Amino acid sequence: MKIAILGMGNIGSGVVDVILKNGAQIEKACGQPLEIKYILDLRDFPTHPLGDRIVHDINIIINDPEVTLVAEMMGGSHPAFDFSLSALESGKTVVTSNKEVVARFGAKLTKAAALHNVHYLYEASVGGGIPLIRPIVDCLASETITSIDGIVNGTTNYILSSIASSGRDFDDVLNEAKALGYAEPNPTADIDGIDAERKITILTALMTGRLYTPEKVCTESIKDVSFSEIKTAAASGGTIKLIAHSSEEKGKSDIFAAPCFVPQSSPLSHIDGVFNSVLVNASVSGPLMFFGSGAGKYPTAGSIIADIIAVANGTQRHAAPFEKADDSTLLPSDLHVSSHFYCIPAALREKAESVLTGAQLFECENTDTVGAIMPPEYHKDASRRRDEIGGETSVYRVI
Amino acid sequence: MKIAILGMGNIGSGVVDVILKNGAQIEKACGQPLEIKYILDLRDFPTHPLGDRIVHDINIIINDPEVTLVAEMMGGSHPAFDFSLSALESGKTVVTSNKEVVARFGAKLTKAAALHNVHYLYEASVGGGIPLIRPIVDCLASETITSIDGIVNGTTNYILSSIASSGRDFDDVLNEAKALGYAEPNPTADIDGIDAERKITILTALMTGRLYTPEKVCTESIKDVSFSEIKTAAASGGTIKLIAHSSEEKGKSDIFAAPCFVPQSSPLSHIDGVFNSVLVNASVSGPLMFFGSGAGKYPTAGSIIADIIAVANGTQRHAAPFEKADDSTLLPSDLHVSSHFYCIPAALREKAESVLTGAQLFECENTDTVGAIMPPEYHKDASRRRDEIGGETSVYRVI
Repeated sequence: MKIAILGMGNIGSGVVDVILKNGAQIEKACGQPLEIKYILDLRDFPTHPLGDRIVHDINIIINDPEVTLVAEMMGGSHPAFDFSLSALESGKTVVTSNKEVVARFGAKLTKAAALHNVHYLYEASVGGGIPLIRPIVDCLASETITSIDGIVNGTTNYILSSIASSGRDFDDVLNEAKALGYAEPNPTADIDGIDAERKITILTALMTGRLYTPEKVCTESIKDVSFSEIKTAAASGGTIKLIAHSSEEKGKSDIFAAPCFVPQSSPLSHIDGVFNSVLVNASVSGPLMFFGSGAGKYPTAGSIIADIIAVANGTQRHAAPFEKADDSTLLPSDLHVSSHFYCIPAALREKAESVLTGAQLFECENTDTVGAIMPPEYHKDASRRRDEIGGETSVYRVI
Repeated sequence: MKIAILGMGNIGSGVVDVILKNGAQIEKACGQPLEIKYILDLRDFPTHPLGDRIVHDINIIINDPEVTLVAEMMGGSHPAFDFSLSALESGKTVVTSNKEVVARFGAKLTKAAALHNVHYLYEASVGGGIPLIRPIVDCLASETITSIDGIVNGTTNYILSSIASSGRDFDDVLNEAKALGYAEPNPTADIDGIDAERKITILTALMTGRLYTPEKVCTESIKDVSFSEIKTAAASGGTIKLIAHSSEEKGKSDIFAAPCFVPQSSPLSHIDGVFNSVLVNASVSGPLMFFGSGAGKYPTAGSIIADIIAVANGTQRHAAPFEKADDSTLLPSDLHVSSHFYCIPAALREKAESVLTGAQLFECENTDTVGAIMPPEYHKDASRRRDEIGGETSVYRVI
């Protein structure tokens, strides 16, 4: 099988490295030799062992009938989407790590794949190196997924775990994450939950077949989560994590990417550092969790290659295309039916007791805040109650 | 596709229930209708909706060319092995939840499957409802698995977690587990690690292609693990879990199922209750963990059905058969190259300090024991050193 690599960045060069290094094993798994015929990049790589495969014009790839699979690892919406669509329309399978393209254009691209009897595969787009999408599609095909809760962004999980373990403040930890390469120089997409919002849009489409507009998904930043809040959460029996959630209720979808209170009893509460972990509730198999490296050159390359192998050895099932969702079937975020965790300045304790009738307040040593977990019947007015208590009171969904 | 169910026990009846309930979805996933033509059991089920499919003679199934797949959920070695072999030899695929048969006869059965161009599939034999074997085989085909550490027995994990959280003693917790249905009336196979030993034998064969004799795998019981030891482990930065381990070193396999010290930094340390979780170290994708219900009627049925679907829709890859391993390539358990955790009666502290030169001792409130974690260079003589310290000193591998 002859393939083309689009984008020789971090992940693309990882895929090339692994194919060069593990060639014999990959050939065995594919049941045939795998040849990288072209690498599309703006740059040249004269000293690279495959430097002679570099091309700068996508049409060389599109017009070569020998190339049956294109691995797109360019990042960004354009021209990644356009190149992917052209490849599918010319009868080539596309595998990708580009969550932005899958989340925004997945309906068009999966439809084009179905129309041309090829595949559009995206294992690497969520959870980096974690086998996640293939197990969901292949192993849970006979059952209904009732909810997904995931830690799908390593940068924010590193920051929140690091605040929790060190007691340092957000800016300090963010700077450290940048220095360690765990955060981008411009970390907005991670911090503000945009990366997580794209990933939960993709996971929701796997669950329901419907692809929502990622920008319509309720997204909240982690930038106001403080050490004091995390400590108070611990005293209340949990911690605070950026959770990407999706569930369905009466044909409507409850989807968000937001910092949440995660009780200690949830396996997600113990996932620290840059790791990702996705908890899937399945109607027959029960709760399942998939854990691993959510990003990184080689883990993500591993997922790209897993998709390539499935196509090469003919074990890839033709999946139903995503339907573009009607965004009005998204539940408004304030209608979320979970419990809520309030973190309240200790000075406002009496006020909180009057607003949150019957609440048990959790006190925490060396902080000036108290915690309260309020049952679902309080959920509708969570924002109003928070404002009524006033001060620096914050409120988080409980997952 | 017409199939036969062997054994209408807990899991077999779960598979039948799910096929009856989710028939439309399963048909869609299979790409064809799925019909249960026969159910083999010693008993009759006159009031069951499929009571008319019950047969008592395996030959009816073996001799019916319409039946292309047999799901074996009988338990025990015989006649489950014999029936499976007959089915494979008559050109029928076999899927199974029977870890005893896979661990003992997997080499013969996978060879018979290859010879007759059918499949022998066993997703349900390890980790119950967790998609584990399929992701390892399909998603990690291009890389090397360097080690596996798993909590693969829910009964013992429930008991150890329950001792840890309640402070009650082993017998008390075991009785509770029996009352709750988490432990068998005769729990020896679980408590003494025999169930875990079978499962790690199977996982090792997936890693290396070599199937060891399960009885040759080093196995240790959890029956002497006490609350005081678990508390001391906590004070030393971890906990005690029954871990099934496999790794390779210079062509030799280090395999065991034994209570181990699991540091808090390992995601396995936080897996409590009856859940299972398997940590796989992969050369490209890094550490991966698969978590879920390790047993139970419906979760295990879900895995059986996932295997059936893969066969029905033609996406099941033909795997290389297992080779029977040369058991002399098993590393002796005392050559294990990890660190060790010593739990020492406080009264023997001075003696311990003289035997474990340079050890940092961890003290624990309200226990009469102290803990020490000794580096790998101490491993060879762990048993000798334990005896030298004397008393009730115990020693656990650190994973």
